[in-house]
Amino acid sequence: MPINLSEIPTTAPDDLDKDDARKITRERAKRIAELHQKLVAEGKHSVLIVLQGMDASGKDGAMRNVFGECAPFGLRAVGWKKPTDLEFAHDFLWRIHKEVPAKGEMVIFNRSHYEDVLVQRVHGWIDEERVDRRIESINAFEKLLAYDNNTLILKFYLHLSKDQQAEELMERVVEADKHYKHNDGDWEEREHWDKYRAAYEDVIDRSEIPWHIVGVDQRWYRDYVMTEVIVDALENLGMQWPTLETERDWS
Amino acid sequence: MPINLSEIPTTAPDDLDKDDARKITRERAKRIAELHQKLVAEGKHSVLIVLQGMDASGKDGAMRNVFGECAPFGLRAVGWKKPTDLEFAHDFLWRIHKEVPAKGEMVIFNRSHYEDVLVQRVHGWIDEERVDRRIESINAFEKLLAYDNNTLILKFYLHLSKDQQAEELMERVVEADKHYKHNDGDWEEREHWDKYRAAYEDVIDRSEIPWHIVGVDQRWYRDYVMTEVIVDALENLGMQWPTLETERDWS
Repeated sequence: MPINLSEIPTTAPDDLDKDDARKITRERAKRIAELHQKLVAEGKHSVLIVLQGMDASGKDGAMRNVFGECAPFGLRAVGWKKPTDLEFAHDFLWRIHKEVPAKGEMVIFNRSHYEDVLVQRVHGWIDEERVDRRIESINAFEKLLAYDNNTLILKFYLHLSKDQQAEELMERVVEADKHYKHNDGDWEEREHWDKYRAAYEDVIDRSEIPWHIVGVDQRWYRDYVMTEVIVDALENLGMQWPTLETERDWS
Repeated sequence: MPINLSEIPTTAPDDLDKDDARKITRERAKRIAELHQKLVAEGKHSVLIVLQGMDASGKDGAMRNVFGECAPFGLRAVGWKKPTDLEFAHDFLWRIHKEVPAKGEMVIFNRSHYEDVLVQRVHGWIDEERVDRRIESINAFEKLLAYDNNTLILKFYLHLSKDQQAEELMERVVEADKHYKHNDGDWEEREHWDKYRAAYEDVIDRSEIPWHIVGVDQRWYRDYVMTEVIVDALENLGMQWPTLETERDWS
């Protein structure tokens, strides 16, 4: 059945206590750091985290809170902005493919190749045939990463309500340490809210590797859900610390 | 119907005169240079030339004779050798995708992503399931380049007889200016001739973008056929010299 985002809550369930959740989140963030260390040591798997969502859905904060305990070696965050001239002179996956994780590496995409079937579609810069082909290419591309480089791909749609977006955007105007995030363009994009919503629903429906939809109106709940998903997925890889390799007898 | 390479001649037809063919080849090589210049000027299309074939099938000579008239700007040749450690830590198309042509560029691959379903298969380094998936990925990848970056992909299988290979390899032992090409490993690979032949046939059958099979026992015939295919394909792009952009009235 096609997904209907307006039926999915953007808020935490009532019976979840905020302080309890925060405590659990902190423990899980530490566990993610341990599992990341194991990923680097073992060098067999790669991990790609994709963060998508409307403007002000909390992608930056998620990176800080979920991955903030990880060591920098073997971790990389890539923010995707408007393509350069050289990037525009190539297919849309060209710049993306260069940045995917190596074995033993975890890479976080703040926005991603999905922008090329979202913003470009909403503004009518590409036709629907191109959208179809790109979605097909994305599925083939993600499958390639998965089977040919043991890549665990975790995609998060940060699910924000329209009211909460207004609050978050307003904070950027009034708080000095958030001014740098303000962009008049975000208020213009907000007028296309319904079109973006529909484009997201379509993309989520047609993705072969499934999306995790995370309510983000309360940031603490976002972190609680994301850390849960990531810990579970990393545990499931069954990674092992490499055994000692030595020719001496240490007994 | 599946292709049977042993039914396709590796030599020139009897009624083609060598001197005539060479003259025509020279004219076509000049025409390729003109069309390449137009490609660069127009900046709308990209061209990817893939050269595959058994050892000593004449890939280097083809690059010299077919593209030797082209200007260096907007032309790039990439030789694919054994992957580096970093390349091995990624999917097999990672290093390939980085090197595909930009709009307004022609790139020649001397060997290519096809090695990953040929040499690795012949030696049993990957299983048949991985071969199937890789062929699927290659088809999706080439389709992406074609539709999303106007890439003309011309793939040549340089079709060499086993006897002629022996002669070519021997020349590398006896001629001083060919010593640098000699490699004991080529004689070992020659023992897998039939397996390589079968792997090539399978890849040619399953490629969505078709291959051009060129008999190369006589090098002059190789150049004659390749220049014909390339001139035709470039002419078919219908490229136009950009019109003059100026605000002054020059009349």
